[in-house]
Amino acid sequence: MTQDAILATYLLETPHSVERAVEALAGEGSTGTFVAVPGETAEIKERFRTRLHSVRELPSTDQASFPQPPNLQSTKYERAEITVAVPMEMAGSDLSTLMASILGNIFELKELSGLRLLDFDVPADFVKRCLLPQFGIEGTRKLANVHGRPLIGTIIKPSVGLSPEQTADMVRELAEAGIDFIKDDELMTSPVYSPLAKRVEAIMRVINDHADKTGKRVMYAFNISGDDIDTMLRNHDLVLNAGGTCIMLSVNHVGFAGAMYVRRHSQLPIHGHRNGWGIFTRAPMLGMEFTAYQKLWRLAGIDHLHVNGIRNKFWEPDESVVRSVKACLTPLVSDADRLFPVLSSGQWGGQAPDTYRLTQTVDVMYLAGGGIQGHPGGAGAGVRAIQQAWEAAVSGVSLDDYAAEHIELRQSIAMFDKRGKA
Amino acid sequence: MTQDAILATYLLETPHSVERAVEALAGEGSTGTFVAVPGETAEIKERFRTRLHSVRELPSTDQASFPQPPNLQSTKYERAEITVAVPMEMAGSDLSTLMASILGNIFELKELSGLRLLDFDVPADFVKRCLLPQFGIEGTRKLANVHGRPLIGTIIKPSVGLSPEQTADMVRELAEAGIDFIKDDELMTSPVYSPLAKRVEAIMRVINDHADKTGKRVMYAFNISGDDIDTMLRNHDLVLNAGGTCIMLSVNHVGFAGAMYVRRHSQLPIHGHRNGWGIFTRAPMLGMEFTAYQKLWRLAGIDHLHVNGIRNKFWEPDESVVRSVKACLTPLVSDADRLFPVLSSGQWGGQAPDTYRLTQTVDVMYLAGGGIQGHPGGAGAGVRAIQQAWEAAVSGVSLDDYAAEHIELRQSIAMFDKRGKA
Repeated sequence: MTQDAILATYLLETPHSVERAVEALAGEGSTGTFVAVPGETAEIKERFRTRLHSVRELPSTDQASFPQPPNLQSTKYERAEITVAVPMEMAGSDLSTLMASILGNIFELKELSGLRLLDFDVPADFVKRCLLPQFGIEGTRKLANVHGRPLIGTIIKPSVGLSPEQTADMVRELAEAGIDFIKDDELMTSPVYSPLAKRVEAIMRVINDHADKTGKRVMYAFNISGDDIDTMLRNHDLVLNAGGTCIMLSVNHVGFAGAMYVRRHSQLPIHGHRNGWGIFTRAPMLGMEFTAYQKLWRLAGIDHLHVNGIRNKFWEPDESVVRSVKACLTPLVSDADRLFPVLSSGQWGGQAPDTYRLTQTVDVMYLAGGGIQGHPGGAGAGVRAIQQAWEAAVSGVSLDDYAAEHIELRQSIAMFDKRGKA
Repeated sequence: MTQDAILATYLLETPHSVERAVEALAGEGSTGTFVAVPGETAEIKERFRTRLHSVRELPSTDQASFPQPPNLQSTKYERAEITVAVPMEMAGSDLSTLMASILGNIFELKELSGLRLLDFDVPADFVKRCLLPQFGIEGTRKLANVHGRPLIGTIIKPSVGLSPEQTADMVRELAEAGIDFIKDDELMTSPVYSPLAKRVEAIMRVINDHADKTGKRVMYAFNISGDDIDTMLRNHDLVLNAGGTCIMLSVNHVGFAGAMYVRRHSQLPIHGHRNGWGIFTRAPMLGMEFTAYQKLWRLAGIDHLHVNGIRNKFWEPDESVVRSVKACLTPLVSDADRLFPVLSSGQWGGQAPDTYRLTQTVDVMYLAGGGIQGHPGGAGAGVRAIQQAWEAAVSGVSLDDYAAEHIELRQSIAMFDKRGKA
């Protein structure tokens, strides 16, 4: 039965009994209306019914997560983790229909005072019909020619305001510093002061020159996000034809059908920027876990996805970042469908030991903006410091010990390390 | 200055001072990183700075809306309504860039314990460059040939499980009942038991026959939502060529670039279904107000948008529904860019007087599922009852008085009215 069903796991909260909440959720997800109507036969109801697969009651709470109307206010709100099985015959036509089922009207049910999608599973044959990452980790490593260690990358800072030539100058310095990967900021699409075509031309001249000289082709993720798909496709071609090896999309704003259209056309890995993700996750009893989110975007064919970083400058606790990395690296049906997790935000290398200890992987992109470009020895020293930090992390040597022999790491510790400064 | 800026108004909450929270928000929205970097000149900082436009302090609260880490826990969280001005030069390239700015990383700032976009305004020349509704209210009324009163519509129920022929039989009954508008359910895309092509064929045969006989062409919104734009365009053509007059999209799951691509191609009004909207709005200190949401989709070119209904079966209070209707009906730059608000959920006509009293408009689509198909006199009586309820509402006669002379309304009051039954 569950072979032909989507299994969706939710955290739910309700002023009623869990049983009644589940009934409401299952009804809205299938044939329900507020009165019985002709044509709604027992056979249809049975065949298209959302079924309760499992339920784990959790401790109740005395405060509702969503504001409650006077008639539903209570001193006790039940909580449970439930898994429902949605028949594929009903919701399995495509990713958009699947989302209408597991992420649709159910979030507006008055019977729920909290609802969060924790995870979902779809049958393997559905996964195989999806686009999935075209390059993923192995394809990206091949293009960047970086193996056995994280891709070290950076974001151009300041993120706005530089002309194409100024940006290209920075790229030259970063390329000479030995960087593997550079990305545009999410606000940098095609503004008047730096039109994408000019930026691609100026930057790719530098990257191509550097590749000709050294054999190393820096991967640059050009932000081709836009509201016009034809323009996005033309911009993809522009990047491809100029020798570029990556495009970036603000996935939430481009949206699923748009990103998937780009994916079908693309000959380059798609760097997924998740800006806006906070809306989906920051209320603990609403929206969804990153585990579910990354699965949606993986099915849609994105290759890289941002996951924040250890001791980041945002709200997210480390344990959540670690779970996100692990989610990206867990195959759906094969290793090829894994997402390349992108660590960033406040990173400078000092987080490398904990990142490695907690995730036990080097299959990450590790991005530092200020951590590289703000290094007292310049960007080259910034890149080397981060490489050194990862060497220390993987070989199990403490940063301080490794820094004794590595000046760039030593400088970055002196500059960025907050230990004992609080 | 503000002529060249996006004005975005947020409700914010912070464990710090409002001033510090605004600084964090403005910094993340422009050039910010955690250290000063070369190239970040005073001129760039000034030119691309997000500016505080106005601030209204609100009463503080003793509980944080988002969970706080131990070092930020407090007994007092400041709240304010703030408006910031984001330079168009930075974020005005297109809708996707605008969203990255006003709905991006700022939702992950640790300096905020709550953030909700209440509204935004963009310069008129930006609005005019956007797609905007192609049909809107007037174009839809013309196609449906319904003037001076709400479009009365229904959703096919049961929403899943019927074959194309069974669905067409229902459509025949509803057309004969005098319905103006019918829509697919959001879960009904192109399942194996009712492929869209077969459904369009069977339903349009009925609708075309009915139009030939009576001169009235029922508007049917076929749900062409999907994850493949080429298929969506083909399905649009299929509907158009069969004589159909409307297509429906689950806008959140198709996403902006996809919906806009369909809009550019479309020769039919786009009925926007907002399923999943609860995720964006149900936590009062997160996400956004419908006022902002409908503006985004209007700029993207959607023609109709769901707004729930008075005394709906979902969580939403009436005053929020009323604000949503009013937001859709407020022009951006002209009456032509207004959205047709779609009232639905638990509607049966009994809500018509309050709907009219609170909104003072008949420019709504008024959809009833069970309220029509569950009417004891059949669907025809269900449609007539709702028409009668709106006649009563607009002429200021009470439902009970009007029902004395109108049997279908009387029957529906007997069946659906909950007054005095609690």
